Amino acid sequence: MNEAAITLDGWYALHDFRSIDWASWKLVSAEERQAAVEEFIAYLEKLNEADVAKTGAHAFYAIVGQKADFMIMTLRETMDELQELEAEFNKLAIADFTIPTYSYVSVVELSNYLAGESNEDPYQNPHVRARLYPELPRSKYVCFYPMDKRRQGNDNWYMLSMDERKSLMRSHGMIGRGYAGKVKQIITGSVGFDDHEWGVTLFADDVLQFKKLVYEMRFDEVSARYGEFGEFFVGNLLDNEKLVNLLSVK
Amino acid sequence: MNEAAITLDGWYALHDFRSIDWASWKLVSAEERQAAVEEFIAYLEKLNEADVAKTGAHAFYAIVGQKADFMIMTLRETMDELQELEAEFNKLAIADFTIPTYSYVSVVELSNYLAGESNEDPYQNPHVRARLYPELPRSKYVCFYPMDKRRQGNDNWYMLSMDERKSLMRSHGMIGRGYAGKVKQIITGSVGFDDHEWGVTLFADDVLQFKKLVYEMRFDEVSARYGEFGEFFVGNLLDNEKLVNLLSVK
Amino acid sequence: MNEAAITLDGWYALHDFRSIDWASWKLVSAEERQAAVEEFIAYLEKLNEADVAKTGAHAFYAIVGQKADFMIMTLRETMDELQELEAEFNKLAIADFTIPTYSYVSVVELSNYLAGESNEDPYQNPHVRARLYPELPRSKYVCFYPMDKRRQGNDNWYMLSMDERKSLMRSHGMIGRGYAGKVKQIITGSVGFDDHEWGVTLFADDVLQFKKLVYEMRFDEVSARYGEFGEFFVGNLLDNEKLVNLLSVK
Amino acid sequence: MNEAAITLDGWYALHDFRSIDWASWKLVSAEERQAAVEEFIAYLEKLNEADVAKTGAHAFYAIVGQKADFMIMTLRETMDELQELEAEFNKLAIADFTIPTYSYVSVVELSNYLAGESNEDPYQNPHVRARLYPELPRSKYVCFYPMDKRRQGNDNWYMLSMDERKSLMRSHGMIGRGYAGKVKQIITGSVGFDDHEWGVTLFADDVLQFKKLVYEMRFDEVSARYGEFGEFFVGNLLDNEKLVNLLSVK
Amino acid sequence: MNEAAITLDGWYALHDFRSIDWASWKLVSAEERQAAVEEFIAYLEKLNEADVAKTGAHAFYAIVGQKADFMIMTLRETMDELQELEAEFNKLAIADFTIPTYSYVSVVELSNYLAGESNEDPYQNPHVRARLYPELPRSKYVCFYPMDKRRQGNDNWYMLSMDERKSLMRSHGMIGRGYAGKVKQIITGSVGFDDHEWGVTLFADDVLQFKKLVYEMRFDEVSARYGEFGEFFVGNLLDNEKLVNLLSVK
Repeated sequence: MNEAAITLDGWYALHDFRSIDWASWKLVSAEERQAAVEEFIAYLEKLNEADVAKTGAHAFYAIVGQKADFMIMTLRETMDELQELEAEFNKLAIADFTIPTYSYVSVVELSNYLAGESNEDPYQNPHVRARLYPELPRSKYVCFYPMDKRRQGNDNWYMLSMDERKSLMRSHGMIGRGYAGKVKQIITGSVGFDDHEWGVTLFADDVLQFKKLVYEMRFDEVSARYGEFGEFFVGNLLDNEKLVNLLSVK
Repeated sequence: MNEAAITLDGWYALHDFRSIDWASWKLVSAEERQAAVEEFIAYLEKLNEADVAKTGAHAFYAIVGQKADFMIMTLRETMDELQELEAEFNKLAIADFTIPTYSYVSVVELSNYLAGESNEDPYQNPHVRARLYPELPRSKYVCFYPMDKRRQGNDNWYMLSMDERKSLMRSHGMIGRGYAGKVKQIITGSVGFDDHEWGVTLFADDVLQFKKLVYEMRFDEVSARYGEFGEFFVGNLLDNEKLVNLLSVK
Repeated sequence: MNEAAITLDGWYALHDFRSIDWASWKLVSAEERQAAVEEFIAYLEKLNEADVAKTGAHAFYAIVGQKADFMIMTLRETMDELQELEAEFNKLAIADFTIPTYSYVSVVELSNYLAGESNEDPYQNPHVRARLYPELPRSKYVCFYPMDKRRQGNDNWYMLSMDERKSLMRSHGMIGRGYAGKVKQIITGSVGFDDHEWGVTLFADDVLQFKKLVYEMRFDEVSARYGEFGEFFVGNLLDNEKLVNLLSVK
Repeated sequence: MNEAAITLDGWYALHDFRSIDWASWKLVSAEERQAAVEEFIAYLEKLNEADVAKTGAHAFYAIVGQKADFMIMTLRETMDELQELEAEFNKLAIADFTIPTYSYVSVVELSNYLAGESNEDPYQNPHVRARLYPELPRSKYVCFYPMDKRRQGNDNWYMLSMDERKSLMRSHGMIGRGYAGKVKQIITGSVGFDDHEWGVTLFADDVLQFKKLVYEMRFDEVSARYGEFGEFFVGNLLDNEKLVNLLSVK
Repeated sequence: MNEAAITLDGWYALHDFRSIDWASWKLVSAEERQAAVEEFIAYLEKLNEADVAKTGAHAFYAIVGQKADFMIMTLRETMDELQELEAEFNKLAIADFTIPTYSYVSVVELSNYLAGESNEDPYQNPHVRARLYPELPRSKYVCFYPMDKRRQGNDNWYMLSMDERKSLMRSHGMIGRGYAGKVKQIITGSVGFDDHEWGVTLFADDVLQFKKLVYEMRFDEVSARYGEFGEFFVGNLLDNEKLVNLLSVK
């Protein structure tokens, strides 16, 4: 048997993508719409309280194109809280005017491929903790995609030895480091939780950096030979004002 | 011709995943909703009577993410009973506010790869019976996914000799054993019954153990070269109180 | 060019799978529901007259799981009759409360791989005729799945010589013969008619025999290397009484 | 660079498949239904005027199974006319009771693989013209499927030399010729127009000839190694009387 | 690590495909329809102002077949503007009578495979700028498809050296050049933005040139071995008059 990478796992993550049912939304009265928007904003502010208290984190973005109108990403200590937040959203008035289009269940993950050797408990290391229980930035743009490592003929990641994988991941990690300060990456593991093995959430103030990073990585052997990619989503940061504008109709 | 593994088969299994149509659910009166919830709980209690009488078993979980809002898994002596339970559910008032999102038909299965040799009738062995007609635990979390053994180019499970398969399954089983006490596995066979060859249902009180187990197995040759995986579902245990909360709307 | 197998072709076949729209069905009055059920039963009895007259055959089963609530399989002399029966069904009141979920168009087929050599017109042979224009049994269970022979890299059925195919099919046929008396198989060809190359309809009084047969065959080279499988459906026999029960709601 | 086959291109083709929304259709008054049928027949007769004037052609068939209830195939001089006919259909009353299920956009095509050498302008050759601007027969049955030439590992049609392709196509064409008088084939090219590379429309008075032809071809190397097939549709000729019958409900 | 191609990136692009919900559209009053059409035309004219001001560009085409009734392609300086235009469209009355069917998010891209060497800032080069911030022609026809470069076994574009890719792209570019004056190509990159790696938008006054160009390229090694293609859309130019005609119903 081949040695599996050991992972460190932090907060559980739910990415929830929804489209607005515009025709229904326009049908209700302006008062009803206003009440629904206010209730939605109250929900988002409650989410934000967890960010402030560092008991969780969230991100809220308008998605470009028909795949969704917005995405709410939430990080929490337990899987239970994610499901409760989802149910709470479904009970909001605004939910009745949304159509679920995609979701992803995962957990913030650090793999040990790049770890040094140490006897320290990594969960006590403040740098590690900051990555397992991350603040989510209010960057202008977000990118999300799920991915797998390929298991196909001669391109089978899971049949490589630990050393081969380590060496491949090192060069892969170098590319990521080249984007430090430009792109913040949150890797979440979803083996056993959702249809792909990982989710990748990227944040940047220059949306073009997503393309540059993902494209450059594609020429790296880890992606070129072993990467399988799911759907890609890209979006613009929403705040209360932008949300009110988005949902305002005549 | 290649020797097929002989399987022992127990109770038939139906996994039934459904989403709640929240907008419709909110539209009906509080009285109607209460009646529907009570009727639903009575149905679940009837299911539970079979668990108590050991004539079957069931599990009921809230599913995280948009794939479903809940899953009912039922085990019964006959395929007929599964279809009758499904029809009975469809006639409940709550069913009118649910959208079927996925289901899986299979039968609890033990393969003989790991069996010792014996002249005993395995169906009379109490340890075997306990696995073929299992109690389903009330663990905090559930994970379900269907899977196939690959038949692709040089990675063709069904062209391996019985001895090769036995030896591969032995190492695979060792991983599972390492999770004894942490994860309970129910393997159900679905060749001829549904789109994949097996269903895997995992129960645990620590949801992270699902990820650890499935990830560790992925490096084992059985999964790495021969495993093909369908959709993954993860969920939190529901009891009557949690169900009432889930379905309570203003 | 490679020699194609010659096939003998009998009755045309339509497998029609439908789910019941339970919420709508419950909304109409008990009188309307009763009238719709009676009209449906009259339609099924008309189908059965063809079975009696041996001008066709039909089978009617409740399907387990969410793929469908029932399947009607009809065999007729012409493609035209199949389309007419389908249109006739669509005009029934019950049709308005059903959702089409899957269908398959094919023709009962015997391949010559297992045929002896003879100068006789096989269409005059009573044994052959009984298989081309079969009675459909009232077995307790049905299984249906479509399939293809693989054409992929080195596993290309259509590039094998007639002799290789004959020899492979012989061993394959042996497995089927082992289930004589337990499972009745109807093979229907659908090249040029529907998305896969064949449909397989199995009938048995012990539903587990479907799993045993299909699983055992999967280790045979014909399936292991050359079989590609579509969706699987499994169901329980419906008669008028069971249909009335299935459709009865409070 | 590899030499591409030169094609001759004739009329543009739209295959439009639709299902009838029977429940809605039954809801409207008999008068409304009659008016809608008459308007539909007037539309079909207008289509037929182009057949008579040889400025286009059309075919109209009932499709067997749930994929569609009918298909209208239209051939016209320009892509614009196809879109206008489609819009015109959508404005008919009958359109409101149909659900679009599939369509295909292509152009009648002759490839030069089988062409002799000549200095003549092929577009002036009456035999060529008759094939590029074909009359569509009123055969009892139709078969339609889209297809691609495979580009996979060692089975890559587009990496073969012109000579290899010519020689393979010759043997392929021989099979087609064996069905002369039984099956009329219209090959339409859709590279750049729709999701597959070609559409194949077959017409016959004996529906079994579709199966025989496509099955025999599958053993030919062109199909066996290089053919990739999309969905298959099969249907029965509709005339005004049959259409009236199809659409007549109590 | 393999050297990635450097790209120049211009305007962001949104391709938005929608079908008309004809049955609903016919239900509203002629006045309401007229108001909706006028409002839609005003929206399109506002789009056109950006074309005139060269702060963006747009194209508007009727799509042939059931994939969509029309496509609006917009190019803008920022991802934010694309999302705002989309939201603005959704708030139009006409939007309530449309069904989103496909969209694509990308950015106008020039790759450096064909670039000469120079010390000049390419973004200051007027020829480069004209291609990164292009006017969209009012050609009679449009073709759109997304694509990927293959990463499969021995056909892995991303494992080729820069020199191999350069040489392959040179021959590929030669084909494109052969269509100069006949077909205008806009290549947009979508790595990190949408599900494929590139979008290709072609404009021509002779729709057949799309087929000729794409077919000829398919025999070039870049496409033959390394091209993976998504859905293809083809359409006819819409102007205000044609739009009024398209949307006019009795």
